[in-house]
Amino acid sequence: MEITLTSPLDMHLHVRDGEMLQLVAPLSARDFAAAVIMPNLVPPVADEQALRAYAERIQTALCGAHFAPLMTLFFRNYSEAELRAAQNIPGFFGVKLYPAGVTTNSDDGVRSLQAVEPTLRCMEILGIPLLVHGESHGFVMDREAQFLPMYRHLAEQFPKLSICMEHITTAAAVRLLDEYENLCATITLHHLELTLDDVLGGALKPHLFCKPVAKRAEDREALLQAALSGHPRVMFGSDSAPHPIHKKECSGCAAGVFSAPVALPGLARLFAEHHATDHLQAFVSDNACRRYGLTPPAKKVVLRDTPMQVPTHYRSFGQSVVPLYAGEEFPWSVCAVQE
Amino acid sequence: MEITLTSPLDMHLHVRDGEMLQLVAPLSARDFAAAVIMPNLVPPVADEQALRAYAERIQTALCGAHFAPLMTLFFRNYSEAELRAAQNIPGFFGVKLYPAGVTTNSDDGVRSLQAVEPTLRCMEILGIPLLVHGESHGFVMDREAQFLPMYRHLAEQFPKLSICMEHITTAAAVRLLDEYENLCATITLHHLELTLDDVLGGALKPHLFCKPVAKRAEDREALLQAALSGHPRVMFGSDSAPHPIHKKECSGCAAGVFSAPVALPGLARLFAEHHATDHLQAFVSDNACRRYGLTPPAKKVVLRDTPMQVPTHYRSFGQSVVPLYAGEEFPWSVCAVQE
Repeated sequence: MEITLTSPLDMHLHVRDGEMLQLVAPLSARDFAAAVIMPNLVPPVADEQALRAYAERIQTALCGAHFAPLMTLFFRNYSEAELRAAQNIPGFFGVKLYPAGVTTNSDDGVRSLQAVEPTLRCMEILGIPLLVHGESHGFVMDREAQFLPMYRHLAEQFPKLSICMEHITTAAAVRLLDEYENLCATITLHHLELTLDDVLGGALKPHLFCKPVAKRAEDREALLQAALSGHPRVMFGSDSAPHPIHKKECSGCAAGVFSAPVALPGLARLFAEHHATDHLQAFVSDNACRRYGLTPPAKKVVLRDTPMQVPTHYRSFGQSVVPLYAGEEFPWSVCAVQE
Repeated sequence: MEITLTSPLDMHLHVRDGEMLQLVAPLSARDFAAAVIMPNLVPPVADEQALRAYAERIQTALCGAHFAPLMTLFFRNYSEAELRAAQNIPGFFGVKLYPAGVTTNSDDGVRSLQAVEPTLRCMEILGIPLLVHGESHGFVMDREAQFLPMYRHLAEQFPKLSICMEHITTAAAVRLLDEYENLCATITLHHLELTLDDVLGGALKPHLFCKPVAKRAEDREALLQAALSGHPRVMFGSDSAPHPIHKKECSGCAAGVFSAPVALPGLARLFAEHHATDHLQAFVSDNACRRYGLTPPAKKVVLRDTPMQVPTHYRSFGQSVVPLYAGEEFPWSVCAVQE
């Protein structure tokens, strides 16, 4: 069996910085045509200069790969001039909002939505997408559900603002999506596959630990139905979030699943198993292109149900990172990429 | 502030075997007068010979400490003769039932309650307590609640059998306790302190990962109320469950919190904070003595709100184990033990 994807996009990607960037950026560039790059570095990417510099470092790490990084700013109160300047940067995509403290390097995030409404209004007028990590500070299993009224508020207050509910994990979020045309969502591969049982129902699996945490079987089922049916406002975003192994296998493990190098084979298996391969192109590219008016670099990626051996680690530049499916013989693989 | 406890008991303790036994048994014997020893070794302690041999190994590890190990058999279908023989072993306490596969070394556990009813009937007649790890095989957050009908069934079918709901973690289990006189329960220190948020709401904490997993704030609150009020059928059981550090800080972390060496200071702080020190003696000894007719070795343990430095590790005999509160300056400590 073979699936050919045209210009697959990863609409939510962490490539980090420094040596980790050198290691992971080429792995995304190998399989994807473009990816939306998250800005939660330390310090966050929160002005034009930082964004230009980060985009340059990514280009260097890509070594000329045929791949477009779509850059985002870390949300703060930006002036209209600042937002207009950002729009002039090639590859600028949107602004990512983190409630303060909810995930990796989000301490500088937003503490009050009311205080940032002028910036949101300005983004609405300028047509700049808002990407949101939608979690409250409540009980870990309730955080996304508790944030949904905030999405509702944003969708109603800013009807022309394109709002992306990033890495949704609940059936309730899928339902909300259908209430507002200006809401869209990304879904990760791991949230299509895992529940909390996989993270800690047996042994505790730090490499499957991420924020938001995987939820219940009925939540995963709702996410699956949205993705497999080709829901027009649902897009693939891996949220691939590498951490060096010593930050995962330790006494206080960082949140993030490193899925980028196996994301397309993972999606191929999932969509094939559910006889939904006809909708994979929509999920992994077309929906995002239409939503955001993107014209990503031309790339054909051919997936086949030919097994591959997933590395136990990716090692390079002094970094060692454990991928999703580490050490498995995985039944699908990328067998050709044409640019 | 000072609290003097008479013969504190740990009604649920894992001391393991081999080198780990050498390391951890003396730490429990230091602060407690007696403890109920869990039988989930590999292979499980499931006949008279294995129980006698394990009791001897524990005595050796105790090096003459003034401490009574109360021994349990791993549940299987025992004949009346086998149960009577067990009762003749000094220090024999009861039989621990694990549904197959729910926690560490429980693969030989029970798959059908119906099939074991003759053994339960015999235990009821002989007055042998049944201790139960009460979890289903369902979604990790629902497992205890799903098992409650089983407790109800056991309580009704075997009205004279003393049934202990081990390490309860939910408000629903606390409520069930009040419905049947023949049900009692143990509660751990960590389930009085933690919710799932502490385990994975921020960074993932493998040393706080245990089975059953910590639940919601309202569950912890119900457990606290039962313990702090001196509920007559609620007893302290640490479920202290040491694993070597390489089995905790790794890609598939074993379940268990190693709390034995800090259990009494932890309880002292908790009961003092809640102005409930008057009920600590009941929780940590009197309720169990009355329930089971125990006369533990005489021991006075004096706790004071004098800070102690908790070790980051306990190391000995080639083992390294991380305790609860590792590395903390803890505000309470054991300041004297009189035997």
